[in-house]
Amino acid sequence: MIKTDIIVIGGSAAGLTAAITARRHYPDKKITLIRKEKKVLIPCGIPYIFGTIGSPEKNLIPDSLLEKNNIELVLSEATDIDREKKIIHTKDGEFSYNKLILATGSKPAMPPIPGFELKGVYAVVKDVEYLESLQNHLENVKEIVVIGGGFIGMEFADEINKLGGKTVTIVEIAPHCLSLAYDEEFCIEMEEHVRERGIQILTSQKVERIAGNGKVEKVILSNGDEINAQVVILGIGAVAYNELAKKAKLRIGLTGGIEVDRTMKTSDDNIFCCGDCAEKISFFGGKLSPLKLASIASLEARIAGANLYGLFRENEGTIGVWSTSIGDLALATAGLTEEMANMLGYQIVISTVEGPNRHPGMMPGARLHKLKLIFERTTGVLLGGQVMGGESAGEISNIISACIISRMTANDISMFQVGTHPALTASPVVYPLITAAEIAIGKIKKIK
Amino acid sequence: MIKTDIIVIGGSAAGLTAAITARRHYPDKKITLIRKEKKVLIPCGIPYIFGTIGSPEKNLIPDSLLEKNNIELVLSEATDIDREKKIIHTKDGEFSYNKLILATGSKPAMPPIPGFELKGVYAVVKDVEYLESLQNHLENVKEIVVIGGGFIGMEFADEINKLGGKTVTIVEIAPHCLSLAYDEEFCIEMEEHVRERGIQILTSQKVERIAGNGKVEKVILSNGDEINAQVVILGIGAVAYNELAKKAKLRIGLTGGIEVDRTMKTSDDNIFCCGDCAEKISFFGGKLSPLKLASIASLEARIAGANLYGLFRENEGTIGVWSTSIGDLALATAGLTEEMANMLGYQIVISTVEGPNRHPGMMPGARLHKLKLIFERTTGVLLGGQVMGGESAGEISNIISACIISRMTANDISMFQVGTHPALTASPVVYPLITAAEIAIGKIKKIK
Repeated sequence: MIKTDIIVIGGSAAGLTAAITARRHYPDKKITLIRKEKKVLIPCGIPYIFGTIGSPEKNLIPDSLLEKNNIELVLSEATDIDREKKIIHTKDGEFSYNKLILATGSKPAMPPIPGFELKGVYAVVKDVEYLESLQNHLENVKEIVVIGGGFIGMEFADEINKLGGKTVTIVEIAPHCLSLAYDEEFCIEMEEHVRERGIQILTSQKVERIAGNGKVEKVILSNGDEINAQVVILGIGAVAYNELAKKAKLRIGLTGGIEVDRTMKTSDDNIFCCGDCAEKISFFGGKLSPLKLASIASLEARIAGANLYGLFRENEGTIGVWSTSIGDLALATAGLTEEMANMLGYQIVISTVEGPNRHPGMMPGARLHKLKLIFERTTGVLLGGQVMGGESAGEISNIISACIISRMTANDISMFQVGTHPALTASPVVYPLITAAEIAIGKIKKIK
Repeated sequence: MIKTDIIVIGGSAAGLTAAITARRHYPDKKITLIRKEKKVLIPCGIPYIFGTIGSPEKNLIPDSLLEKNNIELVLSEATDIDREKKIIHTKDGEFSYNKLILATGSKPAMPPIPGFELKGVYAVVKDVEYLESLQNHLENVKEIVVIGGGFIGMEFADEINKLGGKTVTIVEIAPHCLSLAYDEEFCIEMEEHVRERGIQILTSQKVERIAGNGKVEKVILSNGDEINAQVVILGIGAVAYNELAKKAKLRIGLTGGIEVDRTMKTSDDNIFCCGDCAEKISFFGGKLSPLKLASIASLEARIAGANLYGLFRENEGTIGVWSTSIGDLALATAGLTEEMANMLGYQIVISTVEGPNRHPGMMPGARLHKLKLIFERTTGVLLGGQVMGGESAGEISNIISACIISRMTANDISMFQVGTHPALTASPVVYPLITAAEIAIGKIKKIK
């Protein structure tokens, strides 16, 4: 039995960040991180292994981060939590803990599609060897189908398409790809962009089954169409990995995540939880949220890790901030889309502006940015924003996030103090965030 | 006499934005903009005329913005304000007003240096013909001296250097270039970068006089050194253009700007003022601020334009957010530097982090970002931040600005909800803003 103070189970974004945070706030504690993977992949980088980066080995989170922070690493699989004795059983020994953080992550969602057991069907498993086998398989095939047009599916398709000489098809069940994150007009523009890059996209199409003799040969749609494929990739989301917690009789939430309060504490006072395995609520109204992102995992980990021996951070709920980039077109979002806001019952005012991300517009690298903001009508509070354009779209969604967190109103944003530069940003006279806020104020006035 | 409701005097960033804002909020008013310049330059774009853009004509704010917003344009020079009768006298006629906005801008500061009247000495005058004559002059000369190593001076020097075959020297009186905006370590790195591009920089050097027979031949420093030059450019700042206001007996502030309250109202209830001609106070403590930037002008214009017939916006004071970019190195700042914060009397905690702006670090376009944050020690409130690196540094300073405006603490920022993407941002696990906040919290704890 090895004695330790803090144990973290799981070594991806959540576990690693939780351990580092615990070290920062509790410099004298003995911290042990238990994980079963020899090497840890950068989760967001996984699609880029296949085209841009070249191999899973080049997309690893270095263990030096653990060493640097004096965190002991145990490579083993945790099999049981003895909550009474505060002991973790692993395949290779026992570890006692004083405080425990569960960061066991998620596993790919498996659709009820016949044929997904065929050779050549892959999920997005965060495992070096698994992804290497997918990479090797891709070398020798011509036709690939990606099931699911979320950002992971889109990024996988584009990266595989970069290999050249392949036919890549995305099959999406919803009317548009990316529709869980963006409003229709943005989805359509991104779909067009992806199609122009040579990828086929089929929307409003359900996969009936995957067919083949031992190995995948084709994907059969509900409408009867058949698509030849030697590799099929499932990119339809992830579900919380909650087995260990269930076994230990921790409360599990309605969406399958481990139940946590706002301090990231589970139903056991000495066990915290963060990342994909934790149940999440939305910043907007506090409803359950299905979002699973590395950036959310990191936030929760910073709350869990800090709160172990004295609560001082609370999770206000998930805003949902993320971005994707295909070719030179970036698309980023923070908060609610127009569709989500309507569905939740907000009365909203929206405004959309377009303009170059440089000034004058002929500066090198200039391109059109399209920005949409969603405000609550009575209070003018910002609920969400989407931005499409060049590289800086990613950080612009983080400006929007900062405005949402601070519950800024359209009027606050109209007085936002921006820095601008010809080679880096839009003009101060027509800075899109501010212009969109001004337009929204005009609309709110008219309604009132 | 022409009757109008709202008159704006001045057509650059402040005047234009004020007129557009007035139109947004007062759709039924007759708005007239009076300016003396036939064509209006994009102020921040001026340095880029000489290398990147190619001519002043390609760096204009289009008058279509006025037409689109139903703003009448009068090309004339305002010579008098009759406050009692509410009439503006111009060189070409009289205009009555109900509400007036002064946005008369600034003129280049002229140093008490003998010889600045010589042919070949130029200031940064926002005038198409003047800049065309400078551009023509540059074609035929080999040696150029820029006096003043602020961001305008640095950008001018770099753009002129791009023309090739010239020797460009910056003379800065302070120990470092850019030292009014950035802490020493950032200034030194940018100086090195600019030197590597072939530009000479002399710091801690005072110009004694500019010498020549009718036209400039050399610049003579206080230490006796002489620098040959056929063109000298003065980039040492700007002073408020307050003549019209002075004549009308409006109160003038201590730094020479027209006095305004937080609603951007002058000492006359019917006259508002915004931009470089308006006196400014700092967000930090409310002291007078010498900053003159197009982005500040635009903010003040949005306050003035909105408040004309009913106050609803207040200026919280200038945070000071801006950026520059030389070659592929961007440098951006928001709020106080370490040096400024110390000078003002804050007790501070600083933290600096470095990391790639992509994840993994081998993603194309990845480069090191260096971020420094300054927090107040007792409250943990963010006072300022500086960031150096790639293109996104510009918008990152706007995230910092949003955090400062909302008076976020280190703990708030440690829980900041960011969106991240391999091709667009740093990793969520080590997102620099958050990591810097965490480090600051550690330091604050140690002190307490």
